[in-house]
Amino acid sequence: MVEYRRHPELNQIFSALADPTRRAILQTLTQRSATINEIAKPFPVSLNAISKHVMVLERAGLVRREIKGREHHCWIDPRPLREANTWLEHYRQFWEQRLDALEVYVAQKFKAAKKGITYGKLH
Amino acid sequence: MVEYRRHPELNQIFSALADPTRRAILQTLTQRSATINEIAKPFPVSLNAISKHVMVLERAGLVRREIKGREHHCWIDPRPLREANTWLEHYRQFWEQRLDALEVYVAQKFKAAKKGITYGKLH
Repeated sequence: MVEYRRHPELNQIFSALADPTRRAILQTLTQRSATINEIAKPFPVSLNAISKHVMVLERAGLVRREIKGREHHCWIDPRPLREANTWLEHYRQFWEQRLDALEVYVAQKFKAAKKGITYGKLH
Repeated sequence: MVEYRRHPELNQIFSALADPTRRAILQTLTQRSATINEIAKPFPVSLNAISKHVMVLERAGLVRREIKGREHHCWIDPRPLREANTWLEHYRQFWEQRLDALEVYVAQKFKAAKKGITYGKLH
């Protein structure tokens, strides 16, 4: 049996990053902290939609919020980004090796196609 | 207006990575290519569920499939992982700086709490 539930928080992080508006909100917050109104301004969607996106980012730990009177100040917490990066880095050596192999494979395929030979899959 | 639809494929990549079974399938495929049956073996879910997960990975470009008779051979294509990593790397400098600031902030908070002082938010 595989052990595959060790990083439940990665589910929320990757899920939060899977939306272009949320990635753009993070980009905005790398410049400076901002209120929900300030965050929403450049987007062609409702304030309510932006507020929901911010909530998803909050649940993933990517955004922190502080309420001051009627204003909600948001800022980015970069730790989950580092965590996602750590997970991906685990595959770096693999993809570097594999991409070299892929180049060789594609070159072979290309040559074979020219000569009418069929090659097996890359492995 | 923000330009935030430049990487539509990142949506599919991050979405595919947001599930622990799919991340475990990728891990399996870093060892060797495998049929759907072989991939499914260690998982406590149905063959059909695994097949659907593989399809999500395929749509994100993370898995390639070759059909030989009745067998579907799958292998990992690491290029989307590299792409996700490139996106995250863009934030590396930011989080490295910010995490240093965060450490200072937490230390201040800790000292302040001991002395009964209230600090503003990290900014």
